[in-house]
Amino acid sequence: MSVEVIAIGGYEEVGKNMSAVKVGEDVIIFDMGIHLDRIHIHEDTDIARMHSLDLIERGIIPDDTLMKDVDGKVRAIVFSHGHLDHIGAVAKLAHRYEAPLIATPYTMALIEKTIKGERKFKVTNPLKVLNSGEKMQISPDITLEFVRTTHSIPQTVTPALHTSEGIIVYSNDFKFDNHQTLSPPPDYQRFRELGRKGVLAAIIDTTRAAEDDQLKTHSEKVARLVLRDIMEEPLKEDSGMIITTFSSHIERIQAITNIASESKRKILLLGRSMERFCTMAENMGILKLPKSASIYGSPKAVNRALARADENRSDYVLVTTGHQGEPDALLPRIANGKTMFNVKPGDNVVISASVIPNPMNIANRNLMERRLKSSGARIFTNAHVSGHAGKEDHRDFIRMLDPKHLIPSHGNLNMLAAYTELAEEEGYKLGNDIHILRNGQAQVFNGGI
Amino acid sequence: MSVEVIAIGGYEEVGKNMSAVKVGEDVIIFDMGIHLDRIHIHEDTDIARMHSLDLIERGIIPDDTLMKDVDGKVRAIVFSHGHLDHIGAVAKLAHRYEAPLIATPYTMALIEKTIKGERKFKVTNPLKVLNSGEKMQISPDITLEFVRTTHSIPQTVTPALHTSEGIIVYSNDFKFDNHQTLSPPPDYQRFRELGRKGVLAAIIDTTRAAEDDQLKTHSEKVARLVLRDIMEEPLKEDSGMIITTFSSHIERIQAITNIASESKRKILLLGRSMERFCTMAENMGILKLPKSASIYGSPKAVNRALARADENRSDYVLVTTGHQGEPDALLPRIANGKTMFNVKPGDNVVISASVIPNPMNIANRNLMERRLKSSGARIFTNAHVSGHAGKEDHRDFIRMLDPKHLIPSHGNLNMLAAYTELAEEEGYKLGNDIHILRNGQAQVFNGGI
Amino acid sequence: MSVEVIAIGGYEEVGKNMSAVKVGEDVIIFDMGIHLDRIHIHEDTDIARMHSLDLIERGIIPDDTLMKDVDGKVRAIVFSHGHLDHIGAVAKLAHRYEAPLIATPYTMALIEKTIKGERKFKVTNPLKVLNSGEKMQISPDITLEFVRTTHSIPQTVTPALHTSEGIIVYSNDFKFDNHQTLSPPPDYQRFRELGRKGVLAAIIDTTRAAEDDQLKTHSEKVARLVLRDIMEEPLKEDSGMIITTFSSHIERIQAITNIASESKRKILLLGRSMERFCTMAENMGILKLPKSASIYGSPKAVNRALARADENRSDYVLVTTGHQGEPDALLPRIANGKTMFNVKPGDNVVISASVIPNPMNIANRNLMERRLKSSGARIFTNAHVSGHAGKEDHRDFIRMLDPKHLIPSHGNLNMLAAYTELAEEEGYKLGNDIHILRNGQAQVFNGGI
Amino acid sequence: MSVEVIAIGGYEEVGKNMSAVKVGEDVIIFDMGIHLDRIHIHEDTDIARMHSLDLIERGIIPDDTLMKDVDGKVRAIVFSHGHLDHIGAVAKLAHRYEAPLIATPYTMALIEKTIKGERKFKVTNPLKVLNSGEKMQISPDITLEFVRTTHSIPQTVTPALHTSEGIIVYSNDFKFDNHQTLSPPPDYQRFRELGRKGVLAAIIDTTRAAEDDQLKTHSEKVARLVLRDIMEEPLKEDSGMIITTFSSHIERIQAITNIASESKRKILLLGRSMERFCTMAENMGILKLPKSASIYGSPKAVNRALARADENRSDYVLVTTGHQGEPDALLPRIANGKTMFNVKPGDNVVISASVIPNPMNIANRNLMERRLKSSGARIFTNAHVSGHAGKEDHRDFIRMLDPKHLIPSHGNLNMLAAYTELAEEEGYKLGNDIHILRNGQAQVFNGGI
Repeated sequence: MSVEVIAIGGYEEVGKNMSAVKVGEDVIIFDMGIHLDRIHIHEDTDIARMHSLDLIERGIIPDDTLMKDVDGKVRAIVFSHGHLDHIGAVAKLAHRYEAPLIATPYTMALIEKTIKGERKFKVTNPLKVLNSGEKMQISPDITLEFVRTTHSIPQTVTPALHTSEGIIVYSNDFKFDNHQTLSPPPDYQRFRELGRKGVLAAIIDTTRAAEDDQLKTHSEKVARLVLRDIMEEPLKEDSGMIITTFSSHIERIQAITNIASESKRKILLLGRSMERFCTMAENMGILKLPKSASIYGSPKAVNRALARADENRSDYVLVTTGHQGEPDALLPRIANGKTMFNVKPGDNVVISASVIPNPMNIANRNLMERRLKSSGARIFTNAHVSGHAGKEDHRDFIRMLDPKHLIPSHGNLNMLAAYTELAEEEGYKLGNDIHILRNGQAQVFNGGI
Repeated sequence: MSVEVIAIGGYEEVGKNMSAVKVGEDVIIFDMGIHLDRIHIHEDTDIARMHSLDLIERGIIPDDTLMKDVDGKVRAIVFSHGHLDHIGAVAKLAHRYEAPLIATPYTMALIEKTIKGERKFKVTNPLKVLNSGEKMQISPDITLEFVRTTHSIPQTVTPALHTSEGIIVYSNDFKFDNHQTLSPPPDYQRFRELGRKGVLAAIIDTTRAAEDDQLKTHSEKVARLVLRDIMEEPLKEDSGMIITTFSSHIERIQAITNIASESKRKILLLGRSMERFCTMAENMGILKLPKSASIYGSPKAVNRALARADENRSDYVLVTTGHQGEPDALLPRIANGKTMFNVKPGDNVVISASVIPNPMNIANRNLMERRLKSSGARIFTNAHVSGHAGKEDHRDFIRMLDPKHLIPSHGNLNMLAAYTELAEEEGYKLGNDIHILRNGQAQVFNGGI
Repeated sequence: MSVEVIAIGGYEEVGKNMSAVKVGEDVIIFDMGIHLDRIHIHEDTDIARMHSLDLIERGIIPDDTLMKDVDGKVRAIVFSHGHLDHIGAVAKLAHRYEAPLIATPYTMALIEKTIKGERKFKVTNPLKVLNSGEKMQISPDITLEFVRTTHSIPQTVTPALHTSEGIIVYSNDFKFDNHQTLSPPPDYQRFRELGRKGVLAAIIDTTRAAEDDQLKTHSEKVARLVLRDIMEEPLKEDSGMIITTFSSHIERIQAITNIASESKRKILLLGRSMERFCTMAENMGILKLPKSASIYGSPKAVNRALARADENRSDYVLVTTGHQGEPDALLPRIANGKTMFNVKPGDNVVISASVIPNPMNIANRNLMERRLKSSGARIFTNAHVSGHAGKEDHRDFIRMLDPKHLIPSHGNLNMLAAYTELAEEEGYKLGNDIHILRNGQAQVFNGGI
Repeated sequence: MSVEVIAIGGYEEVGKNMSAVKVGEDVIIFDMGIHLDRIHIHEDTDIARMHSLDLIERGIIPDDTLMKDVDGKVRAIVFSHGHLDHIGAVAKLAHRYEAPLIATPYTMALIEKTIKGERKFKVTNPLKVLNSGEKMQISPDITLEFVRTTHSIPQTVTPALHTSEGIIVYSNDFKFDNHQTLSPPPDYQRFRELGRKGVLAAIIDTTRAAEDDQLKTHSEKVARLVLRDIMEEPLKEDSGMIITTFSSHIERIQAITNIASESKRKILLLGRSMERFCTMAENMGILKLPKSASIYGSPKAVNRALARADENRSDYVLVTTGHQGEPDALLPRIANGKTMFNVKPGDNVVISASVIPNPMNIANRNLMERRLKSSGARIFTNAHVSGHAGKEDHRDFIRMLDPKHLIPSHGNLNMLAAYTELAEEEGYKLGNDIHILRNGQAQVFNGGI
């Protein structure tokens, strides 16, 4: 029985991840993400109302039209975690396949939200929840397993397909963090077991593969320590305090609110996406907000909260969206004087995020920081650790899994090439057992493990 | 008689140049520029309708309020050249001084345009034209001389004040270019004569002082050669050709139109500021446009011209504004599909300009280039040479002028510091005979040369 | 009584720190360091045998010849900490002054070592030990205080001079680290008290002032966490393990040996300077080495130890010199195959240091890493945190001390300029109350606090 | 008949180029170069005395041992130009093949020199000279053609193999320069004709493919202009003048000596490799040295010449080796005070070369420049244009040749990937018709054009 890996999206960019694995006549799809960066190219893009084919043409969602030429039956659409570049196209693409959507509970909740927000298509695929550590029979020949891993959003898993030809591992995205508070460490033992059983192919994300440092990515414990060192003193002072981070980064938000809760200040979680992710995480028992915390998402509620905070700034900690300086997000709007909260000299702004390095983010962030500074704020930048594996984590992972074939993904050609050089240090060779695919290409494995 | 140099603007930024020199009781002001980069900070900025004090507070024009404490009489406001960071604030500030405005003819014509566009203030200062190479008596003790130099706009001069205490040279901005076609080389001999007569102080722009390369800035002859090598073949082909450069860079526009005129194509100079600078330069006999060239400035006329060009793309060369990707300029609007000209596969776009390195320009340029490419255009970037002196030009200039004191200007502290290190290599010492001033500070020279 | 700060060395470079403070007729000197980077300029430099004037001419030690024109009496030579760029010139310069050397015990022990190694001069100045937190009367008008701070070597202090004109603080070098294991946190309370009493001037090192990140420097606790995450697994494996860090960084060496001691491996501290710093620190009760650790400094002993380690590589952890790839240090020699230890595939090399960014270090490190890799080693780079204050630590420090005047030091002009911009954000102004000095210049303060 | 391209060396690095093309049973080898950068890894490398297998193991020459498994007969070894990374391994590898060496006259003369310098092997292959523009029958089925191109050494050609399956083009290295004085422009018309006839595959060097600028590489005419602007004035002064450039860059040396010959100074071409390349080029009538020029290569002769120049520095222009700061080359030795020529304040040093960007070159150059500056010299850096095609030259070349398949070469994976992205803009697709090979891999083309 031959196995085929089909690169649908995310093999030429950081974004719009989608891959398919065909085992005999059965096809399993992994992820259906969007490419946020492409939205800027056409100013009139209104995703919720647009048709898939238009979005495909604009490069915003994966071009899955090639799937009609794939001779097989899609048995499942499997999601690794809840970030938009992995689930954001589900409402545009899933209805074309007669197959269930499979994800961990938190990821599934986010998928349901996405489906509800869609105006163009009706997605009625069955939803099947699978917890990390659990398995599910997909077809007579294929069993899906969710192996526990860590990332910057809760309940991220590394799906593994058990087939007669060997195991196929889809690890996109992950980091190896042994010190998160909401998630246990990755299941290294299980990865090693899979390696011993025989991994035919591993699809791996390459987000940080082109970086110079030969390091393991810092743990969230480092972020907690750095945030505490930054926040502790200013929390005692009279000035305002605003913190911004990724709305979906529940682990980080837990850390921030924990530190803030040791002060006398009330905590306000503000912004629409902050509400979406945090409310859901709190309802599911993942995020444990201190009593002093409240969440406001609607513009009206946010503005009323900001007005109160403006009057008694030393009584509040604001946790907001807008870490990339996106013009419509909350912190950039505060910086631009468009809300009821007036930044004043001495106010502290902690940016618990790195700049996602594209020119528009860099420009937006720069503008936001200059505006905040010209109002007198003090800014702490990059109080952050990455959610993606570093070079030496990748090396460890290769050694654990010992896959027969490697397929780097989730990056431009430069990043796939950098991962390839790392893998070649570990004994692989491009074209022999490490394969660079372009969107739309497939790699066939005959013979199995 | 003491001499005092007063740093009003441009000593903490690249922009809003304004300096004053006080000799006994007489004060001469050099330049009144704006700081375009600051306009982004406040979105609601409408320069033409705003009051000086608001613009000063926003950091957009020099803060000349300190001049009311200067005990002396302003005798003249002297302009070195016609760029906005040197003349752009004239309509906001000049009316406060009872003194004539002095400039070369082309610079003066641009000043008059600026004054006419002003909605808030009425500027009625006398206008006195002075040609390069000429002198003018400013007061019994002071004679102004315009020494010929080169830059990226016609009729740039290096003003020099002859006083009993020595000569004060204001060289902001300049490059040393021996091969321009519209302007003769700088008057090196005169600079050396001034040096021998005795230069008390020289105020020098530091735009490129922080660059690594120890080079003399490339001549426009290099730009001409590079442009010819790029344009010659595509001009013979069937595809469209668009070239963008600085509207005020008449020398470059002359070169571009000369090369284009060797083909059979008609040349369209398009965009409001392209019309302003080129029409004026043509009327004054500076720019000699080929017969095949036409200028269109109003949106309507531009659009009609673009519609014609769209239908017969191989019959035209478009010379447009928008080299920095500014969203409202012409080329970015073409790239964004907002005009009658549709970019098609094979069209050539030559960007005869470097990116002015601030994050928003970088982002805008990147977005424009990605849009052009996604329409199939071929792009030639950075077909350009700088208009500012390189490190080794600065060294030559110091050796020619042999000034007793040096005052670096037109840069942030990092750039002033880099110039200082260069001057220290030539025997100066910070605090002794090279002085770093901040906006609002003054340096007094007692004793003269 | 006037106060004068005299910049002798370290105001145009990172290295050869030396400053003098003159209060009335009394002069106090701070630090006598060398500039290691300049040694490469002349290949034949043999420091131990060379005369001061030659070394001054070559830019290797501070040019203190200007001190003969200072009208006053040197009362003390005070050392802030034991790094070579602060104490390395003591044997060349101290004998010219009839004044005691004052330092904390560990720093003093290192000074004595330096004096004993000198071949050219005989230094007989009295040695006076002062502990952090203690004061010493220097002259009727001046009291010296050692305020506790943190850095990357034990017993670093921030000396403060109490005078009738106000306090002069010499904080060069420091970081703010609340989580070191061998040193308590900086005495923030005392810094605030000094601020309230009245600081006339503060001399501050600017090592990291030109970096972009607006952060507080990470604590050693981060380094401990990162090292543990890196080392834990490989220590259990069969392959070799080498760690290199700064010999003088006793806090780090303590952390490394603590982690290593949890394994079954023996720990070998290897290299001449490793022996010098560690033996002294252990004898003084600062460093607590585990029982499994031994120190070898002489080439013979080192080689014998390496031979044993080569045979049973999984029984040892090697802690070596050579983190910058300096050709004569131990790790580069191991990498180059010049010792008894043969690097083999699978060996782990942890570089617990950043590259000190000059071109020769970058080249040496690159060559060392390529050699290690071509032998099959796995390298972990930059497992490190800085020992110098970040931008936001500097801001905190300015707010604590509230000094009337600031004098940035220990950097090139670009770094002093970057610190100046930071101080200007805090309300200072260059030339008014923040002063950039060049080596050889002085700043006089009349009027006191 | 199948065609196979075998990547032997230069597909994972910039250096040691060697490729083979197998057409039916006939094999043609292109280039046999060395990888200079690897020599540093083992300090004891003595190339002239070492065996091929040792050099292969050290990564210094291509690993051609795989050729023994290639089922076919080597009919010719063809050289594109005379740089060491293309001919430097000829003496180590050519004797293993019973096949003639084929090259243009100047390249062949350099090959003969290399063979004569060899101590280990005896190379007796027949030498066949082929001029650019000419063809030679290699086997019944294969004709070799040398198409005229330009680079930074005279008589560079682009070899093309005419076969029944289509043409195979080997273009490694080249630039498109229409304004060289010693070489006519590339034969664009012939490239287009080959394209029309049918190019099966093109092997292309990627040296500058990863650079950002979308430009055509500047012509040597730019270098001539820049050099004249730099040199003209200093040549009239009393100070010394040294110029350093690539010894093999005869076009540049012609330009330098032409400019220098307009002054009254004598021109000294100094250094062993300067003698080798220039004498040969002069003897062959390629280089036309002015009468005022002399060449000295032996250390003794160089030193005597330097001694004369030292005494009457304003009577000479020195043209030397050492542009990368290599410690044993002439200019670095002058900078280090190891010759009879003492650099003095005011001396001018023109570096007509860029830094070949590896860490050791950067360090060596930095050290050399600092030494020259500390002696008072004025340095002009980077008075240079590249000898390699820019991105837009590559695009033009692809359009001219219209090859069925592309094989990027002469770069690390990052550079091959960058070229691939460029080719994909032109309609190629990785894995389909653009192929990334690793050293030792082969690409088979069945079916021909």
